[in-house]
Amino acid sequence: MTASQDKTFIGGFHAVMAALERSPRPLSIWLANGRRDGRAETLRELAAEHAVPVSSTDMSALDAMLPDVRHQGCIAVYELAGELRESDLPGILARAERPWVLVLDQVQDPHNLGACLRSAAAAGVSAVVAPRKRAAGLTPAVRKVAAGAAERVPFVVVTNIARALERLQAEGYWVVGLDGEAPASLYDTTLPDKLVLVAGGEARGMRERTAHFCDLTVAIPMSSGIESLNVSVATGVALFEARRQRLVVDGTS
Amino acid sequence: MTASQDKTFIGGFHAVMAALERSPRPLSIWLANGRRDGRAETLRELAAEHAVPVSSTDMSALDAMLPDVRHQGCIAVYELAGELRESDLPGILARAERPWVLVLDQVQDPHNLGACLRSAAAAGVSAVVAPRKRAAGLTPAVRKVAAGAAERVPFVVVTNIARALERLQAEGYWVVGLDGEAPASLYDTTLPDKLVLVAGGEARGMRERTAHFCDLTVAIPMSSGIESLNVSVATGVALFEARRQRLVVDGTS
Repeated sequence: MTASQDKTFIGGFHAVMAALERSPRPLSIWLANGRRDGRAETLRELAAEHAVPVSSTDMSALDAMLPDVRHQGCIAVYELAGELRESDLPGILARAERPWVLVLDQVQDPHNLGACLRSAAAAGVSAVVAPRKRAAGLTPAVRKVAAGAAERVPFVVVTNIARALERLQAEGYWVVGLDGEAPASLYDTTLPDKLVLVAGGEARGMRERTAHFCDLTVAIPMSSGIESLNVSVATGVALFEARRQRLVVDGTS
Repeated sequence: MTASQDKTFIGGFHAVMAALERSPRPLSIWLANGRRDGRAETLRELAAEHAVPVSSTDMSALDAMLPDVRHQGCIAVYELAGELRESDLPGILARAERPWVLVLDQVQDPHNLGACLRSAAAAGVSAVVAPRKRAAGLTPAVRKVAAGAAERVPFVVVTNIARALERLQAEGYWVVGLDGEAPASLYDTTLPDKLVLVAGGEARGMRERTAHFCDLTVAIPMSSGIESLNVSVATGVALFEARRQRLVVDGTS
């Protein structure tokens, strides 16, 4: 099998088992040749229940589908998800159990956008919002780095980030911007439950107009001498600090 | 000016000011044309004190030197640092105030290694250790993504990771491995002060032999359905959780 342009992949047993329980379901599942253990059998049964076909192939073919992922010989195939529009956002958030949002203000590098989508999905963010102009979109390169996450987290493209932030604020969301020069530390900040986290682009960070709409800006405290992190790492650090705080509140960490 | 192969760059006012106070000092500093504000003047004075020459050039030339960094029109130029050997490690750790170490077990993608080095420097790690085989080294691509961090954090190449871990354990270090399938959560774990954090490579995570030498393995708790993060993001999240805990202990967060 080869990876066709209109398909995408999710790897790993847990991930594929979870994918089978969710809508939309995978089109099909690939298992590495010779897998006959208990986990594989449980997966085959669940797939049969949901009428998802399971096939076998070489480990090397699976590595080619998801070169940057610990897929454990188990991959689910999906149809590509498309970009969503601002008008889709209220419905997405209404359906989420504890909605929170990541806004990427002009992230332009496909590797960074892909890694941010992967982190957003892993942290359980309800939607990722990005501007149409001067920002990377859901290209094949982005989807590849996202390793299936582009199908897992809604990606909403808007024409005007500031207006989108205003609308979220009107719905009771708090907008927290990541800014390396903010006086407040991320770790001294109790992040709100209805959180909109804003990260800026690679070269110049958040635009001034975007920063103007933040209720609060926070910095990741760094060792002196290095002023910035890669944008996908900074975004991941902030997303998982928010997730850590949510888990502490839940008592389920 | 063009970026020559044996030079590297650090960007941003804070970073360059800090660099001027440290050994080794930068070879020279570039400021964007027309910068005559107070910060630029303070920087010129400090550079003069340390006999570091300051020149001016176009913003676009500075963007070309550090395309992925908020350099704010201010860049320090360094000679390239080289890879270090295992025999250098004890001296590096002896000189560090509160030593801790990041071990990268077979990270092969230059983008990931560069981002890990940048995160390690920003988190204040004392040294990064990596194996010679099946792992990326300090190539120009890695240095570019590291955005100056390859000169800031010692990069130690060893022939045998397991033996290096054993030696660190003999010195009183605790070895904590990142493993997506570990039952313990990173956030429920009090990380030791003399910490060696181990992250695995892109495709297969930590090798079994490396995991065998961990005193403890922990997972970053993720939303169900996505089983892994990009290795540089996972490493960044764990490094900054360690840093957060160190800051809390210090009371200086």
